[in-house]
Amino acid sequence: MPSISKKGMRMPASPIRKLVPYAEEAKRKGRKVYHLNIGQPDIPTPDVALDAIRNIDLKVIEYSHSAGFESYRRKLAGYYQALGLDIDYTEIIITTGGSEALLFAFNSCLDEGDEVIIPEPFYANYNSFAISAGVVVRPIMSSIESNFALPPIEEFEKLINPRTKGIVICNPNNPTGYLYSKEEMLQLGEIAKKHDLFIFSDEVYREFCYDGEKHFSALELKGLEEHVILTDSVSKRYSECGVRIGALVSKNKEFMNTALKFAQARLSPPSLGQIAGEASLETPASYFHEVSEEYVERRNYMVEALNQMPGVFTPKPKGAFYTVAKLPVDDSEKFCQWLLESFEYKNQTVMMAPAAGFYASPGAGKDEVRIAYVLKIDDLKNAMETLAHALEAYPGRTL
Amino acid sequence: MPSISKKGMRMPASPIRKLVPYAEEAKRKGRKVYHLNIGQPDIPTPDVALDAIRNIDLKVIEYSHSAGFESYRRKLAGYYQALGLDIDYTEIIITTGGSEALLFAFNSCLDEGDEVIIPEPFYANYNSFAISAGVVVRPIMSSIESNFALPPIEEFEKLINPRTKGIVICNPNNPTGYLYSKEEMLQLGEIAKKHDLFIFSDEVYREFCYDGEKHFSALELKGLEEHVILTDSVSKRYSECGVRIGALVSKNKEFMNTALKFAQARLSPPSLGQIAGEASLETPASYFHEVSEEYVERRNYMVEALNQMPGVFTPKPKGAFYTVAKLPVDDSEKFCQWLLESFEYKNQTVMMAPAAGFYASPGAGKDEVRIAYVLKIDDLKNAMETLAHALEAYPGRTL
Repeated sequence: MPSISKKGMRMPASPIRKLVPYAEEAKRKGRKVYHLNIGQPDIPTPDVALDAIRNIDLKVIEYSHSAGFESYRRKLAGYYQALGLDIDYTEIIITTGGSEALLFAFNSCLDEGDEVIIPEPFYANYNSFAISAGVVVRPIMSSIESNFALPPIEEFEKLINPRTKGIVICNPNNPTGYLYSKEEMLQLGEIAKKHDLFIFSDEVYREFCYDGEKHFSALELKGLEEHVILTDSVSKRYSECGVRIGALVSKNKEFMNTALKFAQARLSPPSLGQIAGEASLETPASYFHEVSEEYVERRNYMVEALNQMPGVFTPKPKGAFYTVAKLPVDDSEKFCQWLLESFEYKNQTVMMAPAAGFYASPGAGKDEVRIAYVLKIDDLKNAMETLAHALEAYPGRTL
Repeated sequence: MPSISKKGMRMPASPIRKLVPYAEEAKRKGRKVYHLNIGQPDIPTPDVALDAIRNIDLKVIEYSHSAGFESYRRKLAGYYQALGLDIDYTEIIITTGGSEALLFAFNSCLDEGDEVIIPEPFYANYNSFAISAGVVVRPIMSSIESNFALPPIEEFEKLINPRTKGIVICNPNNPTGYLYSKEEMLQLGEIAKKHDLFIFSDEVYREFCYDGEKHFSALELKGLEEHVILTDSVSKRYSECGVRIGALVSKNKEFMNTALKFAQARLSPPSLGQIAGEASLETPASYFHEVSEEYVERRNYMVEALNQMPGVFTPKPKGAFYTVAKLPVDDSEKFCQWLLESFEYKNQTVMMAPAAGFYASPGAGKDEVRIAYVLKIDDLKNAMETLAHALEAYPGRTL
């Protein structure tokens, strides 16, 4: 029997997936499970997108251009321009979700053994895409005590060596919800310039910034036009996770020509998803106001509820719809499993993502979880009440 | 300015893409260009699929399971069972087109520097996926004189070394239209067993078999259940190239578990495309009969027309909707460019794919083109008439 690849063996199983059988078992027992573990929002997809799909007038669902429909790219350039970003439609490649954008970026810029620095905790699948592309991830710790702010420049410089080719950031951040300030972005730009590094900037949560804070895009970094590779997605912006439409955006022509060759190999991004994505650009501003208000209410409630629980601490994130919380438990993987396997409060329990899966440093995040506030406020209240009781009952509590 | 990857530099530009600007220029001049260069059929998508899309009843377009909707996988298992293949839904992962299926297969089975043997000419993007995965392609010549039959076993054995991990076939074949016989498949199975190799079998043209010939799937190879990795797609079967839905099928559990980790990293295949794909399984048999009759009529006309042109030879392919033809020209890339740039007959011209792009051996296929018979018979007649005149007028003709 032929053996699978070493690369395949190194691919991590998702930390959430391990819990899925326990969640299914809990549901089989008739228990209500609150899903705080996933990035699938409950927010409705805009009607303009659903209507565009329902009204398709096609005889053949054909390939699009490998870089995506030109009409979509032109309108999407208009979206960036409205944000004050000087982007032409030729500087955009439509991808199959943000995932494919990142894979094309890594494959176009990095060879086997090249290194990227990523502040941890980070989106767990960055690891998977790095393994796919043969790239080495060098993590750099951002701590919950400093609200997950950008680590000091010196920490980056300690890791930089001749194989270092780039820095990956996610802004606003998944899993921490942290929003990088303009000052932090400028610092990052300086390191990139000094050491001739790419900045891979994942900005899929751009619209989810709260408390009047303004998002500062990596594309605004002056003099770094050749360094910045932006990855984007409609998944969260329009609650369209399933359409699998994202984008690669860069002013670096050599990079774009190379990425297009990877795009040509897979022929085209999904045509139906592009129809939804293009129509979504007509989403009224009121949609975003409502969504933002909803998330702010959820966040405020949740952060307060968490910090009132003895021994629990979470920062108040300014973006996205996640937070990382420190819990008074021996091991958050065990705790999350125990919640599903052995605990119930009023026949309810909670599913969360153990944070260790978001760290590359062994042992880090062992007493942390990522919580996604993608539930309606009433459900969130029940979930927090349940969690509070669980922390009192958990045999491995450390308080 | 940071430099792009060596991998990216090695990615081939599609041989067809180079011709696109010339085709656009010809159209700007008001010239009718017959597209024999692409695998985008003109056949309508089945109504059941289009209706399913128009009738979607969703509030949120959510992620599906990373392996695809369970309902779709169960019905798709039924499709394979109806073909006599013993496939359970747990042995299927829905992918973003056949492209992603192949990429997951390579990444799950092959490490940097591992080798796969592929009979050439072969689908040009196999090269691209091999480069993405760091894999070395070892081509083995199948010649137009022998109708592109499977090369003798001894030729495979000459190339097999400790880094050889698999053989890639496409059956029926793109670009040649060749349909491997049961005997050839059994031979291939013997080599794979003897040398413990994977068989990556691309069977996306399964339904396109003519003259009463029966398709023999690699999944029918007895005792090779752990070796066979099937890649599949709805693109050609239902003329749904744009939905980007394919599948990985294998009875090798270790492989499937590994491929699923790659699938989890990209979250899910397109949900809308899956809705179309699932509905397409209800396509009436009459659809396939009509499509088959249409292609047979086109093929018969085209093969005869080509072989009547002085110095031209093409086999009569038994599958898919392509053929490779040998032309009396100095260089088919130059000829194809000349057709678009400098030739017209009744203000018409023809676009074809130079075959060199389908060979890995340098210099091979220099006087061959791939022709896709994806045009209605009247257009095909005009295209063949135009080609015949072009071959008489071409300054680089060798006859």
